[in-house]
Amino acid sequence: MTREHFEIRDQDGLGRIGELAVPRADVTVETPALLPVINPHLRTVEPSRLRSEFGAEILITNSYIFYGSDDYRQRALDEGLHEVLGFDGAIMTDSGSFQLAEYGEIDVTTPEILRFQREVGSDIGTPVDVPTPPDAPREQADEELATTQERLEVAEGVDVGEMLVNAPVQGSTYPDLRERAGRHAAATDLDVFPVGAVVPLMNDYRYADMVDVIAGAKRGLGRDAPVHLFGAGHPMMFALAVAMGCDLFDSAAYALYARDDRYLTVRGTEHLDDLEYFPCSCPVCADHEPADLRALGDRDRERLLAEHNLHVTFEEIRTIKQALRAGDLLELVETRARAHPAMLDGYRALTDHADLLEREDSASKGAFFYLSGESARRPEVLRHRERLARLSLDPGDSVLLTEGGPSDRYDESWRVLAPFGPFPRHLSETYPLTAEVPERMDAEGHRSAAKGVARLAEANPETEFTLAHHDWPERALAAVPDRVATVDLAE
Amino acid sequence: MTREHFEIRDQDGLGRIGELAVPRADVTVETPALLPVINPHLRTVEPSRLRSEFGAEILITNSYIFYGSDDYRQRALDEGLHEVLGFDGAIMTDSGSFQLAEYGEIDVTTPEILRFQREVGSDIGTPVDVPTPPDAPREQADEELATTQERLEVAEGVDVGEMLVNAPVQGSTYPDLRERAGRHAAATDLDVFPVGAVVPLMNDYRYADMVDVIAGAKRGLGRDAPVHLFGAGHPMMFALAVAMGCDLFDSAAYALYARDDRYLTVRGTEHLDDLEYFPCSCPVCADHEPADLRALGDRDRERLLAEHNLHVTFEEIRTIKQALRAGDLLELVETRARAHPAMLDGYRALTDHADLLEREDSASKGAFFYLSGESARRPEVLRHRERLARLSLDPGDSVLLTEGGPSDRYDESWRVLAPFGPFPRHLSETYPLTAEVPERMDAEGHRSAAKGVARLAEANPETEFTLAHHDWPERALAAVPDRVATVDLAE
Repeated sequence: MTREHFEIRDQDGLGRIGELAVPRADVTVETPALLPVINPHLRTVEPSRLRSEFGAEILITNSYIFYGSDDYRQRALDEGLHEVLGFDGAIMTDSGSFQLAEYGEIDVTTPEILRFQREVGSDIGTPVDVPTPPDAPREQADEELATTQERLEVAEGVDVGEMLVNAPVQGSTYPDLRERAGRHAAATDLDVFPVGAVVPLMNDYRYADMVDVIAGAKRGLGRDAPVHLFGAGHPMMFALAVAMGCDLFDSAAYALYARDDRYLTVRGTEHLDDLEYFPCSCPVCADHEPADLRALGDRDRERLLAEHNLHVTFEEIRTIKQALRAGDLLELVETRARAHPAMLDGYRALTDHADLLEREDSASKGAFFYLSGESARRPEVLRHRERLARLSLDPGDSVLLTEGGPSDRYDESWRVLAPFGPFPRHLSETYPLTAEVPERMDAEGHRSAAKGVARLAEANPETEFTLAHHDWPERALAAVPDRVATVDLAE
Repeated sequence: MTREHFEIRDQDGLGRIGELAVPRADVTVETPALLPVINPHLRTVEPSRLRSEFGAEILITNSYIFYGSDDYRQRALDEGLHEVLGFDGAIMTDSGSFQLAEYGEIDVTTPEILRFQREVGSDIGTPVDVPTPPDAPREQADEELATTQERLEVAEGVDVGEMLVNAPVQGSTYPDLRERAGRHAAATDLDVFPVGAVVPLMNDYRYADMVDVIAGAKRGLGRDAPVHLFGAGHPMMFALAVAMGCDLFDSAAYALYARDDRYLTVRGTEHLDDLEYFPCSCPVCADHEPADLRALGDRDRERLLAEHNLHVTFEEIRTIKQALRAGDLLELVETRARAHPAMLDGYRALTDHADLLEREDSASKGAFFYLSGESARRPEVLRHRERLARLSLDPGDSVLLTEGGPSDRYDESWRVLAPFGPFPRHLSETYPLTAEVPERMDAEGHRSAAKGVARLAEANPETEFTLAHHDWPERALAAVPDRVATVDLAE
């Protein structure tokens, strides 16, 4: 089903540039987008500056804080959130589910909080879902998901006017529950789809589990749903999450981390005390050295660190958008995967979902860069291998598959390129076979090419094959069937 | 030999933070350092701004341009370079060797140009060396190196006062000639050691060959010589070059690329026309979008692009310095190696020189991150494997090497951690065995661990070994000797 308020403009794997129309704010938000979290009690950076200096088109605040606040409740009802916060972009509001997860209960129902969100002028509201933590017993996850699903159905019945409504996807760490939750949520007439309760996974650097959870939700939600990775604010994992099909992120981290003197980078988090040089050139880091910031008072230091954290966060969103336009998002993910071994786990988990990526990936992009053993598991490589299983050659013909030049001594002569394997020469100029590959290819790449040879040989049992390779290691050649003759060109 | 003007403060692999004292400028330059190239005829960014806004402590200009210029020669002699350029940091001058390489001859000798450099107030001068291009015939490389070496000896005899003097290291793409050149240069009383004629390698993305050339020069120069990678100005390869022991870089790229609307990043070069978003948050990119810059006149666009290029270049130098302090330079190189397949070749070439790195690497650092199959070839892994060959166990004992818990059924029970292999449990808390490794270990890591098992078994032929592994693939287990029993804990 096509969703009324979300349009996909450009796609690379599961990642995409989209437009989320937010009618109540009369704003179109370009995705991937970052929503800075505003705590009305602690405005580290003024919302008006978020728009003018950092380019934020949308932010998020917690309606439950306004709902329960003596200071803010009436003001929000009288003036509206946009006026109270001083922000003229789109405003999404959370419902208090976080407080529910933290403190066990809250004193508001889905219809009450949705109506309140509408009354204070929220542009995207949220029902009271139940965030089931990772590794919960399956029975609990199942029961709580049923409750969330009931709340979504209740939300459908509430008159929210032009306000869009979130439909959170829960299911703990059970991919099949996440998939069921996604399918149910997508079938409602709600608008935006937060993947919920993933913060504990991110806090524990469980990026592979995070990828599996997102994959489950995406399988259920389908392509057209705008997906919010709820609570994800560290720029280190944005590229990975976008490559899994996430469109919206929200960051409380920029301010929370700043309060603890923590400095965000795309390679992790640093404590200000451990920095002698700023690995950044944002306006804060171009003007200061770490020692300068350490010498400041708490308030100024916190504000400048929060500004740096916002700069690097929005910079990563722009970097990802540029990669999406250029069609090299997976190349960016390769780079980001080297931030931490747990990020590498996340990237390796992504390649386990190559079937899902392959389904949506465009067949032609700029250039395929082979950047690590993981590149041998990219969707393009699997797609080529599947294709080999469907190519038929004349039975009885002799075919040379070679990394070198063609030879007249065979009926046909195909090229071989690791990690893809063999292909007819006339495909040499087509994507992804125009790939840039290292001269020092690794065993994973050679092994992947050997698997391609095996696939072609299986599909053509009556054809005679000879593989002429350049110094492939024994552990790659082991994947070539015995009936394929091999010649080492390097000997 | 210790060199009078260069002191190493901190070291990680071959990379180091150093201090180059430049007596004539009364400046101490912290290395790794970037020297912006100033062409006096085309000042894209004023030298005074290079110091105040970008933090440049040293720049480089070509004395041969002043020597042969009607406009500048007399002014430089009268006022001095610092006054003419408006720069109060250190100034290095080139000699015209570049013009020699481009146009075949120049009309100045080493004594003449060194005296001229002294007279115009250069802080670091350069003799007229012969830059032999890559892949030159060996005889040519050999003869031209002899000429360069004579010139260095001539330079030693010139009275240059307090001015430091460069001793270029040539030898084309012959590592043994580079090594000989390095040894000769280090034995002179000259001060700074540019590795010359590498620009064609960088222009052709031949980073593996670049690494081999640097390694040759370093083997000859030894640890104490400050090394300048002459003509290297693209931030993409700084981390790799620093990890090979380079200390100084110079960038004409920031201005030359800006003139062609080219935008530098640590992941490569983009044409302004191909950018929809700036993947950067430097003051230029925080204030503008690509479309804004495209709408500007040539002069303003060129200046702003040059400023961005300088920001990202100095940012990478700071990022590298921070990594050197934290002891995670190779982790940064892992990241940068994913910019392009040719950079991966460069990183793989670096691991071929693990013996050289291993010799100087400090035995203990913060944490070892396993980030790719290449991590299995890091010096720390090889060092551990060498150590296993020296560990002796009681003959006749039965020893369990296990990825799981210890067992009483054996005389001893050691831990196994990929990529390192086995080690006694009491070493668990020592570097690098405190490594962070992915849960989804790859075949290269398991194979490396298997090689460690093999090394230990070879060293203790009378001891009985059992390897208990967790689902290692056949191609890793193939490296375990037959006499080691294996148990799969996953079964």
